[in-house]
Amino acid sequence: MADNLRIGIAGLGTVGGELVAMLQARADQLSAQTGRRLEIVGVSARDRSKARPFAPGTWAWFDTPEALAVAPGLDVFVELIGGEDGPALRSVTAALTHGRHVVTANKALLANSGLQLASLAEANHVALAFEAAVAGGVPVIKTLREGLVGSQINRISGILNGTCNYILSKMETEGLSFTQCLAEAQRLGYAEADPTFDIGGFDTAHKLAILTSLAFGTAVDRDAIHIEGIQSITLDDIRAAAALGFRVKLLGVAERNEHGIEQRVHPTMIAHSAALAQVMGVTNAVSIDANAHQRLTLIGPGAGGKATAAAVIADLTDIARGNVPHPFAVPAAELTPGERVPMQAHRGGYYIRMFVQDRPGAFAAIATRMAERGISLESIMQRPGVEHFSGASNVPVVLITHATTEKLVRDALAAILADGYVSEAPQIFRIERD
Amino acid sequence: MADNLRIGIAGLGTVGGELVAMLQARADQLSAQTGRRLEIVGVSARDRSKARPFAPGTWAWFDTPEALAVAPGLDVFVELIGGEDGPALRSVTAALTHGRHVVTANKALLANSGLQLASLAEANHVALAFEAAVAGGVPVIKTLREGLVGSQINRISGILNGTCNYILSKMETEGLSFTQCLAEAQRLGYAEADPTFDIGGFDTAHKLAILTSLAFGTAVDRDAIHIEGIQSITLDDIRAAAALGFRVKLLGVAERNEHGIEQRVHPTMIAHSAALAQVMGVTNAVSIDANAHQRLTLIGPGAGGKATAAAVIADLTDIARGNVPHPFAVPAAELTPGERVPMQAHRGGYYIRMFVQDRPGAFAAIATRMAERGISLESIMQRPGVEHFSGASNVPVVLITHATTEKLVRDALAAILADGYVSEAPQIFRIERD
Repeated sequence: MADNLRIGIAGLGTVGGELVAMLQARADQLSAQTGRRLEIVGVSARDRSKARPFAPGTWAWFDTPEALAVAPGLDVFVELIGGEDGPALRSVTAALTHGRHVVTANKALLANSGLQLASLAEANHVALAFEAAVAGGVPVIKTLREGLVGSQINRISGILNGTCNYILSKMETEGLSFTQCLAEAQRLGYAEADPTFDIGGFDTAHKLAILTSLAFGTAVDRDAIHIEGIQSITLDDIRAAAALGFRVKLLGVAERNEHGIEQRVHPTMIAHSAALAQVMGVTNAVSIDANAHQRLTLIGPGAGGKATAAAVIADLTDIARGNVPHPFAVPAAELTPGERVPMQAHRGGYYIRMFVQDRPGAFAAIATRMAERGISLESIMQRPGVEHFSGASNVPVVLITHATTEKLVRDALAAILADGYVSEAPQIFRIERD
Repeated sequence: MADNLRIGIAGLGTVGGELVAMLQARADQLSAQTGRRLEIVGVSARDRSKARPFAPGTWAWFDTPEALAVAPGLDVFVELIGGEDGPALRSVTAALTHGRHVVTANKALLANSGLQLASLAEANHVALAFEAAVAGGVPVIKTLREGLVGSQINRISGILNGTCNYILSKMETEGLSFTQCLAEAQRLGYAEADPTFDIGGFDTAHKLAILTSLAFGTAVDRDAIHIEGIQSITLDDIRAAAALGFRVKLLGVAERNEHGIEQRVHPTMIAHSAALAQVMGVTNAVSIDANAHQRLTLIGPGAGGKATAAAVIADLTDIARGNVPHPFAVPAAELTPGERVPMQAHRGGYYIRMFVQDRPGAFAAIATRMAERGISLESIMQRPGVEHFSGASNVPVVLITHATTEKLVRDALAAILADGYVSEAPQIFRIERD
C-alpha cells in the first residue's frame, strides 16, 4: 500500500465533526478504493475543549488554521472555516503555496478568489477541490468538470439554496405567508437569524458563479450576476402561478446567448412539469443543458453535515488516487473573462402582477403601453385563480407576456406607473418554459 | 504537453461515428483539460467503404477489432461493437492483456464478464471504463464510483431502458395500447424489430447488475436478478394506477436488506410525487439512497449517439489525466459474492388486478384468502377510476395490500385461483411508496 494521505482539518463544526466521524467509520472502505490510508494528522478549531461527536484521534492540535496549513508532513489541508477572506483565505493560500492540496466547502471564498487560488494550485501542482461548496450532496462539480467534458454546455439552472426552496415550498403546501415560513425555517435551523444572505439570493449567486466558471470556461465573476431575492413573494403570487400551471422557485441561471454569458439569480416561474418544479423543501437540484446531453438533472440534499462531509471525502479520495484536474476544468490561465450580458438584454416571458385602480380605461392603458413596445400578451387576467390578493384595495391584475426583453418590460412598466392607474411597484417573475 | 493519448476505436456505428466527430470538434478543449492530445490512431469496423459522418483522419484501418486491440503503440482500445462474447470479448481481453486501457459501452459484456475483465485490467494496471454502458448520458458510473465514496449506499432504483419508458409514457399520455405504442417505438427506432431484449427487462437487468456491483461492492451477478417485463401491462392497469396516485414504470431496483442484496427488474407502481414517476419518454433516471445523501436522483438521456459518445469521451479524459480507479470501485479481488435474496422474500405493498366472476361470495373468498396469510388490504375496489377493463367479461377488481411478502401474495393468489372465482392469472405490480 502506498503512503498514507496525511490530512489536516481546519474547522470542527457540523461538517468537520461529521467528516472526522465518517473518515473513522469508512477507513477500510476508503483504503480499498484508493490504495492508501486517509489519515487525519492535524486539526484546528476555535474551541479546543468543546465536546465533539467523534472518538479522539492521535492527531495534533493547532491553534490556528494558518499553522495547520503549513505543518510539516501534511498532504491535504481541508478548510471548513468559512468566510470569503480572513483565516480561510490566509490558510488556503498558505497551504497551496506550500504545495499542499486543498479541499474546501467555502463557496464565498471561491466566488471571491477562485481564479487566483486556482492559479496558485496549478503553479504548485496541487489540487483545489470544492465538491462540497455547491449543493453539498449533489456531485455537480465532478459532473461538470469530468462527466460532461464531451459536451458543450449551453445553460445551467439550479435550485441552489435550501432555505429559499424550503420557504417557497412551505408557502405553497401550507398556505402560509413568507414571514411565517421564514420564522419556521429559522426555528428548524434552515435559516440564520439574519437571513439576508440566503433569502436575498447572495448564497445562490456565489454557487452560480462557481458553476458558471466550470460550465463555460470563464473566470469566476460574481459581480456579473444579476441578483434578486424572494422577500417580496406573496402567497397570492404563488397561488396565481399555480393556477397558471407554474411553480415559483429561486433559480440561479447561467446561459450562453448571442451576447455572452447571462448570469442571474431571481424568482422564476417554472412549468409544473419541469423536473426542477418538482423539487420541494431543502433539496437542491441542477439542470444542465448540453449539446450532447439535451438535459441532465441532478437532485439531492444541498446541505447537511453528512452530505457535505461525504463531498469532502469524495475530493479526498480523488486526491489520494492522484485524480487532480484543473480546479475549473481548464488551466486557470485559459479561463476567459466571461462577456457580461446586462440584465436589460434578457429575453423571455414575464409574469407581472400589479394592483390596478378599478376605473374605466385602466386595462386599455396597460395593454396600450405594452403594445407600444411590441410586447405581446399571452393573457391579462383579474384575480386569476386566487381568492384574493391580500391587502388589495385595488384590483389585482396578472399579465403573462410572450417572449420579450427585460428592457421593454421595464420601460412599459415605468410608463404604466406614470399613467397613474397602478398603485405600487409590480411583482415581476421571469418565466422559464421548460 | 505530455504524449498524445493514442486511441483505437472498434465499431463505427452511431456511437462510434459521433465519437470520432466529437473528438475532432472538441480536440483543443480536451487537450486543455487533460494536457494531452486525444489522437485516434486506428479504427475498425465491419464495412470499410460505408459513408460516415466525420472527416477522414490519418488513422490506420484494421480489419478486425482483435488486430486493432493489440496494434503497436495503442494506449486505449474503445470497444463499441456490442455482444456479450465473440469479437467484443476477444478484443477487450486482448487489449487488457496487452496493457491497453479499455473503454466500452457494452453492458452485456460487463454483466457477463465484468469481474473477470476487471481483474485482468487491474493485473495489467490499466483502466476498464464503462460510463457509456449504463444510462449513456447520465454520469451514474462516475457518481457511484467516485462521487459517493463517502456514503454507504442502501438502495438504487432506476429507469434504465428508454424503450420501455417510452412505451409506458405513451400508453398513459395518448391512451394507446401496449401493442400500438410498441409499434410506434419501432417506427421511431426506439425499439428493435425483435423487442424482447428491451421489453422483457433483460437490458435493464444488465445495467442493474453493473450498478449493483458498484453500489454494494459485490461481484456482478446478473443471474441473481429477478426479471419481469412490461408485455402484460394494459392501458387499464395504467389508468387504475393513475386513479390511485401512481405511475407504472419498469424499474431496476437493488437494495440491501437483512437477507442480503435484493435485485429485481419489474413493473413498479411509484407514487406520482416521486422524482422517478415524473420521468417520461426515452429519458433515463437513477435514484440512489445513501446514508449521507438521503436520496440523490440523476435524470438524463439514456441513449443516443451523442450522449453515449460524450460518456466515452469522459472516460477517455479520465485515462488521459491518469484517473484510473478500480473498475468496480474496490479491487476486483475484494468484491464479495452478493448474498442473493430470493424474490419470494421481497417485502412491500402490492397492486393486484384480477377478473372476478360476478357471483355471491367472490369478494369474501378473496378477502379470506388474503386474511388467512395475514395480508392486510389497504383497499379492494371494483373498476377503480377506469371506465372499463378491456375485454373483461367478468368484473375487474383491484386490491392494494399493505406491506407483505411475495411468498404470501403468491400463496394467496394460488388459493384464490383454486377457488374458481378468478378467470385468469392476475396482474401484479409491486408498489414503491416513495
